Amino acid sequence: MGIENTSENPSGLDSSVKEKCCSISQTEMNGITNRERGRNSDGSISCTNMSSRNCSESSIYCSDFEDGSDTGNSVGPCRRRRTSSCSTYQHYQPLSEKILARIESGEPFFSLEFFPPRTRSGAANLLARLDRMRQGGPLFCDITWHPAGNPGGDSETSSMTIAWASLNYSGLDTMLHMTSAGATVADIDRHLAKAKNMGIRNILALRGDRLEDGNPSDFEYATMLVKHIRKTYGDYFVIGVAGYPAGHPEAPSYDEDLKYLKEKVDAGADFIITQLFFKPEVFFKFVNDCREIGIRVPIIPGVMPIQSYDSLRHIVKLSKLEVPQEIVEIVEPLKHNDEAIRNYGIHQASEMIKAMFQSGVAPGVHFYTLNREVATISIIKQLGLWNCQPQRTLPWKVVPSYRRCQEEIRPIFWSTRPNAYIHRTSHWDDFPNGRWGSSESPAFGDLRDYYLFYLKSKSTKEELLEMWGHSIDSYQDVWDVFYHYLMGLPNKNGVKITKIPWNDEELCPETTVISDRLACLNKRGILTINSQPNVNGVDSTDPIHGWGTQGGYIYKKAYLEFFVSARRMQNLKEILTQYSQINYHIINKNGRFNFTNAYRHCPIAVTWGVFPGREIIQPTVVDPESFLVWKDEAFGLWTEQWAKLYPEGSKSRQIIESIANSYYLVNLVDNDFPKETVLWEVLDKLLSCDDRNHEEECLSTDESLSCSDEVDSQLQRLSV
Amino acid sequence: MGIENTSENPSGLDSSVKEKCCSISQTEMNGITNRERGRNSDGSISCTNMSSRNCSESSIYCSDFEDGSDTGNSVGPCRRRRTSSCSTYQHYQPLSEKILARIESGEPFFSLEFFPPRTRSGAANLLARLDRMRQGGPLFCDITWHPAGNPGGDSETSSMTIAWASLNYSGLDTMLHMTSAGATVADIDRHLAKAKNMGIRNILALRGDRLEDGNPSDFEYATMLVKHIRKTYGDYFVIGVAGYPAGHPEAPSYDEDLKYLKEKVDAGADFIITQLFFKPEVFFKFVNDCREIGIRVPIIPGVMPIQSYDSLRHIVKLSKLEVPQEIVEIVEPLKHNDEAIRNYGIHQASEMIKAMFQSGVAPGVHFYTLNREVATISIIKQLGLWNCQPQRTLPWKVVPSYRRCQEEIRPIFWSTRPNAYIHRTSHWDDFPNGRWGSSESPAFGDLRDYYLFYLKSKSTKEELLEMWGHSIDSYQDVWDVFYHYLMGLPNKNGVKITKIPWNDEELCPETTVISDRLACLNKRGILTINSQPNVNGVDSTDPIHGWGTQGGYIYKKAYLEFFVSARRMQNLKEILTQYSQINYHIINKNGRFNFTNAYRHCPIAVTWGVFPGREIIQPTVVDPESFLVWKDEAFGLWTEQWAKLYPEGSKSRQIIESIANSYYLVNLVDNDFPKETVLWEVLDKLLSCDDRNHEEECLSTDESLSCSDEVDSQLQRLSV
Repeated sequence: MGIENTSENPSGLDSSVKEKCCSISQTEMNGITNRERGRNSDGSISCTNMSSRNCSESSIYCSDFEDGSDTGNSVGPCRRRRTSSCSTYQHYQPLSEKILARIESGEPFFSLEFFPPRTRSGAANLLARLDRMRQGGPLFCDITWHPAGNPGGDSETSSMTIAWASLNYSGLDTMLHMTSAGATVADIDRHLAKAKNMGIRNILALRGDRLEDGNPSDFEYATMLVKHIRKTYGDYFVIGVAGYPAGHPEAPSYDEDLKYLKEKVDAGADFIITQLFFKPEVFFKFVNDCREIGIRVPIIPGVMPIQSYDSLRHIVKLSKLEVPQEIVEIVEPLKHNDEAIRNYGIHQASEMIKAMFQSGVAPGVHFYTLNREVATISIIKQLGLWNCQPQRTLPWKVVPSYRRCQEEIRPIFWSTRPNAYIHRTSHWDDFPNGRWGSSESPAFGDLRDYYLFYLKSKSTKEELLEMWGHSIDSYQDVWDVFYHYLMGLPNKNGVKITKIPWNDEELCPETTVISDRLACLNKRGILTINSQPNVNGVDSTDPIHGWGTQGGYIYKKAYLEFFVSARRMQNLKEILTQYSQINYHIINKNGRFNFTNAYRHCPIAVTWGVFPGREIIQPTVVDPESFLVWKDEAFGLWTEQWAKLYPEGSKSRQIIESIANSYYLVNLVDNDFPKETVLWEVLDKLLSCDDRNHEEECLSTDESLSCSDEVDSQLQRLSV
Repeated sequence: MGIENTSENPSGLDSSVKEKCCSISQTEMNGITNRERGRNSDGSISCTNMSSRNCSESSIYCSDFEDGSDTGNSVGPCRRRRTSSCSTYQHYQPLSEKILARIESGEPFFSLEFFPPRTRSGAANLLARLDRMRQGGPLFCDITWHPAGNPGGDSETSSMTIAWASLNYSGLDTMLHMTSAGATVADIDRHLAKAKNMGIRNILALRGDRLEDGNPSDFEYATMLVKHIRKTYGDYFVIGVAGYPAGHPEAPSYDEDLKYLKEKVDAGADFIITQLFFKPEVFFKFVNDCREIGIRVPIIPGVMPIQSYDSLRHIVKLSKLEVPQEIVEIVEPLKHNDEAIRNYGIHQASEMIKAMFQSGVAPGVHFYTLNREVATISIIKQLGLWNCQPQRTLPWKVVPSYRRCQEEIRPIFWSTRPNAYIHRTSHWDDFPNGRWGSSESPAFGDLRDYYLFYLKSKSTKEELLEMWGHSIDSYQDVWDVFYHYLMGLPNKNGVKITKIPWNDEELCPETTVISDRLACLNKRGILTINSQPNVNGVDSTDPIHGWGTQGGYIYKKAYLEFFVSARRMQNLKEILTQYSQINYHIINKNGRFNFTNAYRHCPIAVTWGVFPGREIIQPTVVDPESFLVWKDEAFGLWTEQWAKLYPEGSKSRQIIESIANSYYLVNLVDNDFPKETVLWEVLDKLLSCDDRNHEEECLSTDESLSCSDEVDSQLQRLSV
């Protein structure tokens, strides 16, 4: 097969493989094919908002239309029986299938390689980086294996832990490297069992560097490791292997090395990721040579953006690669100008990848990020691969682990603390599939481990004190923290408040819509920690409220959750008697006061979507039983995240703790979603009670300036 | 306890019983109490459209708000753990609880007694009568036990079969009488086991008449039967017993008889139904006497409307009752005027019941109907007890059997053949609770038994021939049958067509909305057998589309199911390529042609409701797998219900069978429910293809008069 032929079948895949791939992902039911994402003439890709982008986020929506073509098909024998529930069509799609699907759709992908950090705070930082990079829609990320650092251990910096956190908390399909050099069968089996137990299903099988003084390994070559994984675990693991376009430095020859690669593939590898190189022709030749000797699996080029002179020298030395003379000539003169080198690196990598995409030989690109993000993101964006407007498959971040792939419903309470929710439900075997009710009283795990790197605030203690105040002198000081957070304003020290204990992120766009109203309530001591506006059938592609496939309609009931003082809680109870359309639940810290008009065993759907050809999807509920669990966390955060910033016995700590001990946690659902919500009216009435003695008066419409008035007049000012 | 006291606690119930009752049904979540149905000054009840009426239809919506009061309550210990799913809050509510709930709510009920008919057609007629009377909302009906007629047998006229059909096919909570006289323990155990197996949970335990030449019974008294049922089945059966306001004719004295009654109650009876009587004072004294000796269970007066001189004489003789002189004096002179006697009977019974309701002593009334309906319905309506506008709990008729009480989803295909659906799913153990998907490939029972009395047409063969034609000479003759049915018009012989094989009832109000359009299609050979218009969030109390509790919103996707010729089916396939918003499924009789663009294992919700405080309820789906089952029935009905009316080899039979063999069954779902449906446009295009040769032209908008135009011009005529 010559290079000419590759333009017809550029990836060199078996037609049987392509067929398999085609049946999986070619078509969406409504005739939206993955091909809509057009390739530009320069090889870059136009970024459009497409439902098929969901493939990169999880396996939802892209693989269950068997025998699909948009003109319909005579129904043949069932190719793969779906076992999951029907509303979101979620099921686990192995990484190998995702890659094939993207090859078939002609939509190039990118993936990202990271190494485990050395410190705890490094681990937290890396997770934050993964969170950011996930936005762009990588197909997967992989975590390297550090044999010297107990990579299979339980420390926060082990390869195993980082891969697990990447999968579950950053929500990336994750591949774990594993090296066999120096390892016994027992070592490997222990690692594989643990990876499986953690939900990891992708392994990059490597030999790794032989330790000079190490024991002889049970696995002399990576081929033996691949064989062992396949033999022991069948198809459970997707297996990647490394390819060396310049030949493995220890191989007798380039041709010998290709034969080793062929053996690895024949042993069961699903795809190849190449060692880094600097010229596209190297990759073209390598792929062509692989196809010549019968290697049919996808080959993904590995690219390292040149980020500094030192790192280039270091990597080249490690990998025993030769840097092309033309690159040396450009880089050498810039060696003291890091920025210039980085810019060159971005340019060089972008051009090389464009050439590979244009040729059609590279199905995607794998980035050796060196745990940095700026250069890589810049290149991804230049290539048009960054997913600017990702269409969410569900209103919350879907975890791509096969363990949770059928998860399609969550209580709203944890919507700003998804990591805590995942942590507390990580031991669940079965995810409630579509009906929360089918999993009555699910046992939530305890949350005592606020220090865990994926749970704790991304900010340091000092940063939090800067935001929330080095000292708290009054309740109003506390209220103002909430107020400034919602308004996106700096506090009195000029520090912008970007988080509160219940929300470690900035406000989501949905909340922004109502943040003025919320801010006004908070300034006066109604301390809101969760909310959503009502929505009556907006398009599923709506940039703020949309999720799911095209052609759907999204609905929400207005929801508000807040802390209030005991006195106000009493007034609120009175006021609520006038509003039969509201479901409420009021509870105190120890749970002895527990007052609701909701059916206790019945969750209330507060977000749902209606899509073509499906049942109704209702991914967010207000569940009275889970609320009892959530309240412990919600009250606990006052103490754990805030009060403990101050010395024991200090006034600041006392104030925070007195709020935790005396305030009530309230949630309100306005069931009449098609109409303007009455929740603001209820809270205006509540505020109007403050200066009054008589209940009757309290319940009448207030003539003083209510929060609604205040916001309205602000809006008027804005529109003038 | 004197009569004076009964006005405070008129039913004489234990306060503990009342409390239990209160916790069950006093309050709907939205503060709508059962008390809204006001009692008029004359003791009759105003008929209002109330959600609490649902109690009489099934146990949905009225019994799960534990500890409820409309101002909320501190949540106490769980009194009864709900085990069913959460969307409709369905669970089985025993008849005894329903009675207590109605006593507590102050809303009188009525119940109806029938005896098993003697013939097969009598059985079909009785079922039709039960269907009609069910509309008025009886709390239950009961079926008498005919010891001489093998009452526990399997014939269509046995007490057991009629009770089972009443429960499952007429949808009435049903009580089966059982008499012990002459029966052995083995007899009774066999009967009870069979009743249990059939889903019957209410037994009226009677001694019955001793057979003069019979064997001595194992159960000398009804008390022994009550004890035996309780001992053997615990609380499984609700047990009613008979009370004799005039004393049992065989009892030594009235007081002795009261003691026997007390024993029956102490043995475990849940309530008392009285023998008939003619003056309210008799009932007042009886209740008072019962309460005096400590009988606390509800006592329901049994009333027999006087319907003819002969039947009055007959009943009085049987029951050894004395007719009051004043009644004798009125009836005697009228003895040859049946209508006058019936009118008097209606008047007399109504006045007596009103007096009993006004006193507050009677919680409801039990009618000895003698299997007739006119007089009883007339009385019920005079009393204001007839439920004029029943609010449906779900869009289809709910079966009150505990076996099906969690059923909350059905395929739309059987919507006009609910009895066939119930028959075919009667062996299911678990009803898919909320997610059709959780019951993949449910195994439907065969439908070979078209002759079964609850499945066959209520019309005779001659009536069907009158409607559908004594001879069929052309396809157009067939099409006209559909057309006339939909238009509610008489056929060419002047006979109004009120049914077609797929629909044994007149059109439902929902279909009426679109019947003109449908009729036009049918006249031209698109033979529709099922349809629903799209609906976008109408109020749940809407008289046509509404169901479920107040405060909800109802949604529907437009649905159309029809037979078409092979040629048209080909054109339709072409046309459908232009409409990505439509899900279609096209199939032929033998299923070899099976063409769909739907996910084969995923049902499409086509009717759903959003209610306060609940998950989304989606009771009707289009399920591709069930469609494969339904098509056998739908094609089979051509032959079984229609072709077989004509002699073998006749032209009429040939035409019908050729349609069954050559037409295609199609279903279409328009997923874009908020917009005007495009289904009419699709079918107009289809009709416009008929006279054309070129596909391209066929796909363009037709300039000839389409069905839409025709209907529009009709509407214009109407509005001029």
